[in-house]
Amino acid sequence: MVIRKHFAEVELEKVDMEGATGTSIRWLIAKKDGAENFAMRMFELEKDAHTPEHVHEWEHEVFVLEGSGVLATEDGDFSLNPNDFAFVPDMRLHQFRNTGDGVFKFLCVVPIKE
Amino acid sequence: MVIRKHFAEVELEKVDMEGATGTSIRWLIAKKDGAENFAMRMFELEKDAHTPEHVHEWEHEVFVLEGSGVLATEDGDFSLNPNDFAFVPDMRLHQFRNTGDGVFKFLCVVPIKE
Repeated sequence: MVIRKHFAEVELEKVDMEGATGTSIRWLIAKKDGAENFAMRMFELEKDAHTPEHVHEWEHEVFVLEGSGVLATEDGDFSLNPNDFAFVPDMRLHQFRNTGDGVFKFLCVVPIKE
Repeated sequence: MVIRKHFAEVELEKVDMEGATGTSIRWLIAKKDGAENFAMRMFELEKDAHTPEHVHEWEHEVFVLEGSGVLATEDGDFSLNPNDFAFVPDMRLHQFRNTGDGVFKFLCVVPIKE
């Protein structure tokens, strides 16, 4: 079935991972919705928050919606502001950090490999 | 390599498909960038424009950025406004229509199957 929702209709879940602070996620479109190839998530980082500095076997495709931050990677650090997008290939060390005064919000699409 | 750009750095290309009017696309992240599983595109529909009414073997994951429109499908018609998202499964007849006074802009992620 076709799905259409406002993002706020999807539960905001705390990301409980080592190295993550003040980070929450909404799984907008995922396997439960019938998606078989990739999932669309929305991240919200509180002021001064960051995701884990980590590396994994899947890529990220990111689009920034609100606030400002930095994508720190082994290829360099990149500022992120609304209407910026980013591609993080698989097996690249990376971390998202909120460097602004408000929430830092971005979409992050990942493959579904199960 | 990690990529970070503003969307306006990516060429806006006219969509030259039967049934499309006033529709342009930017391929933000695609195979040329190293993406192997899915591609992130940004669509811009002019006032009164629409995409083709069509059906295909791949799904869409959509996030609305600007303007207002309708996603017309065989499962019903859904209004689309900023911060709405939509999932169109494979093999569903669908069409995007700009119903607002300005540009209607949304992200649309598709699988890469080649």
